[in-house]
Amino acid sequence: MTQPLRLGIAGLGTVGAGLIALVQRNAALIEARAGRPVTITAVSARSRSRNRGVDISSYAWEDDPLTLARRDDVDVVVELMGGEDGPAKALTEAAIAAGKDIVTANKALLALHGQALAEAAEAKGVALRFEAAVAGGIPVIKALMEGLAGNKITRIKGVMNGTCNYILTRMEDAGLPYDTVFEEANQLGYLEADPTLDVGGIDAAHKLALLSAIAFGVQPNFDAIELGGIQQIEIEDIRAAADLGLRIKLLGVAQMTGRGLEQSMTPCLVPADSPLGQLKGGTNMVVIEGDAIERVVLRGPGAGAGPTASAVIGDVIDIARGLRLPVFGQPAASLAQPQAARATASKPFYLRMTLIDKPGALAKVAEALGNAGVSIDRMRQQGHADTRAPVLVITHKTTRDAIDHAVALSLKTGVVVDEPVALAIEED
Amino acid sequence: MTQPLRLGIAGLGTVGAGLIALVQRNAALIEARAGRPVTITAVSARSRSRNRGVDISSYAWEDDPLTLARRDDVDVVVELMGGEDGPAKALTEAAIAAGKDIVTANKALLALHGQALAEAAEAKGVALRFEAAVAGGIPVIKALMEGLAGNKITRIKGVMNGTCNYILTRMEDAGLPYDTVFEEANQLGYLEADPTLDVGGIDAAHKLALLSAIAFGVQPNFDAIELGGIQQIEIEDIRAAADLGLRIKLLGVAQMTGRGLEQSMTPCLVPADSPLGQLKGGTNMVVIEGDAIERVVLRGPGAGAGPTASAVIGDVIDIARGLRLPVFGQPAASLAQPQAARATASKPFYLRMTLIDKPGALAKVAEALGNAGVSIDRMRQQGHADTRAPVLVITHKTTRDAIDHAVALSLKTGVVVDEPVALAIEED
Repeated sequence: MTQPLRLGIAGLGTVGAGLIALVQRNAALIEARAGRPVTITAVSARSRSRNRGVDISSYAWEDDPLTLARRDDVDVVVELMGGEDGPAKALTEAAIAAGKDIVTANKALLALHGQALAEAAEAKGVALRFEAAVAGGIPVIKALMEGLAGNKITRIKGVMNGTCNYILTRMEDAGLPYDTVFEEANQLGYLEADPTLDVGGIDAAHKLALLSAIAFGVQPNFDAIELGGIQQIEIEDIRAAADLGLRIKLLGVAQMTGRGLEQSMTPCLVPADSPLGQLKGGTNMVVIEGDAIERVVLRGPGAGAGPTASAVIGDVIDIARGLRLPVFGQPAASLAQPQAARATASKPFYLRMTLIDKPGALAKVAEALGNAGVSIDRMRQQGHADTRAPVLVITHKTTRDAIDHAVALSLKTGVVVDEPVALAIEED
Repeated sequence: MTQPLRLGIAGLGTVGAGLIALVQRNAALIEARAGRPVTITAVSARSRSRNRGVDISSYAWEDDPLTLARRDDVDVVVELMGGEDGPAKALTEAAIAAGKDIVTANKALLALHGQALAEAAEAKGVALRFEAAVAGGIPVIKALMEGLAGNKITRIKGVMNGTCNYILTRMEDAGLPYDTVFEEANQLGYLEADPTLDVGGIDAAHKLALLSAIAFGVQPNFDAIELGGIQQIEIEDIRAAADLGLRIKLLGVAQMTGRGLEQSMTPCLVPADSPLGQLKGGTNMVVIEGDAIERVVLRGPGAGAGPTASAVIGDVIDIARGLRLPVFGQPAASLAQPQAARATASKPFYLRMTLIDKPGALAKVAEALGNAGVSIDRMRQQGHADTRAPVLVITHKTTRDAIDHAVALSLKTGVVVDEPVALAIEED
């Protein structure tokens, strides 16, 4: 099989340009490993004239990505446009209809429409691969879908949004408030056009939905994920966590329980000296636990042109080598409907509340917690200058439901101002 | 493709029994992911009657593994006997000749005979897979051969012998001398029958040779690896390293240089707070650096029935799914002959020498180092009770050749007793 595998690339942003640079630079090496040349025949993007730092003059240009998907000289459509609906979805559907294999970095598209797209791709017999959609350059999809395929996966944990991790790391290192660091990240171009995708945990939850589908044999179901963003984290939380030997991370957790699949993407406190706690800046980490493997940890760059292109070309080489797998590792029609199970795992929680500074306020909150069945491990009222008294509580192990109940009862006392912050404390 | 994939397992030690337990326990899950049932039809081992904690009564028994390899009802021969020559080699050759796919955990066999076996397997069109041979359950072969296949790999580093890491960790944690901990490890059954394979770095170097073959497109060449064991490490070295914020690890390093492929498996000092430095006990870690990926780190259990069986079954599922790759990722005939390049990378070194306690001894050694072109960053003579004075030197960046020269000149001064210990200091 020495015929070249011909790519049509739709979307020439940072990753698209990085992919072209990689295919050009490592052509000989890729051919040796793939067993055939990998070439680019056509590209499509919004602007033809924009300088991308790579020479695209030898590739056919298509203004319309749908036309690119239907070209006879394209074997694999690489979708790097992004977006959960609109052009990216239309392109993917067109590529499937045209019988083309597809490689995509689009987590939103697959988290929301993955089941339908997988069924269509499998019916048509085309590959739909998405290593680049999760944890950047880390080959975590491959590890989970192939290397660890003999395991009953028991739990997945991960830090999978580099921007959030950058913001949290920078807040701690520089002692800066959230808003300042958010603005910094924005200036640096780290944020999505809609920053809520990042700081609201949505982007990371998209990724978790895809990992869960593979790990637990369920349809990707973004809506089943308990979601929390980092916008609520204040510098006081960072400092309080540090005092406790903990660090705040936007952490995804997915585990199969007797009541169904529990998935959450929320800010959590983890031990500062644990691998997750030591993760700095834009680096991603995924922890996979299985009945045979025990625990494997993968760490690497979560974004960037090079790492993302590395993941895309890995999928392309798989296709060149003839690897054909169901989109989520087993036939899409066999994937279970995941129930949106409320997390029942019992763990300690960190609670920060701001109380009116008057006699009896603390007692009222302590009573509210007790009435919700939440037992207090440690409680501390901070020194304060004004009429608002910040209170930190570390609870004994309890459930998210009990904590939510405790927060609701606390709010009813009338002594709590602002919305309380409640974060799970995850052991490593 | 719903016909079962039928395994014949040769070798029923810990890993063999673990594999059988895994195939039995996760049969439904493996079938869903592999797209067909994976079954065991025949087994072979030295003792038929030994209790292994798994039921093998429904499998055909073969006293002779060669007969197992030739059975019509075996599609894949799983070689778990171990040993670089003898039965394991004969079995692998017989399986290739019989046109069977092979999955093996045998690093010694492949490090020493991998080129010939790969050529034979590829000529016959059978798979020869060995994920379990390197870093236990960590899917590092898959990451390197497939997920990162688009990268020019620039460097690999790894801690890949859990026994050595256990010994070094235990020496530090308990403050015990090497001999005591070695005996402990022996009692715990952590050591190979020939413990030199572990503590001499040979087992880990076998693994490095396999990673290098994949990463750099060269024939596996164990003899080209600069080899050092941990037997020379004394508790004084552990303590001195700790004082410097460093930790001693048996570290493999492989990198392509202008002069060829440099490979070493030697005890090195790494920052105590780095991922490699924090690795405890039997856990393995592999760091892969490439031109696109930047750096990916994989961590997991380096041995044990479950993790090793996880790696074996991962290879089996690949075969069941129809994945066919050249043994080392590109055709064996195309692999380059690796030159045994002497490490030229410039790095600081740790030197411990014991001097005769007499005036001028230290000066003589300092002069010897200077004559070898080795520049001293820090030098410390330890307090001592007897007539032997321990001296620690941290050099500025220099080469292994210069250090060896310096050691030779130092020995010629007549003031050095015992063999000096020279360890590279690796930045993370």
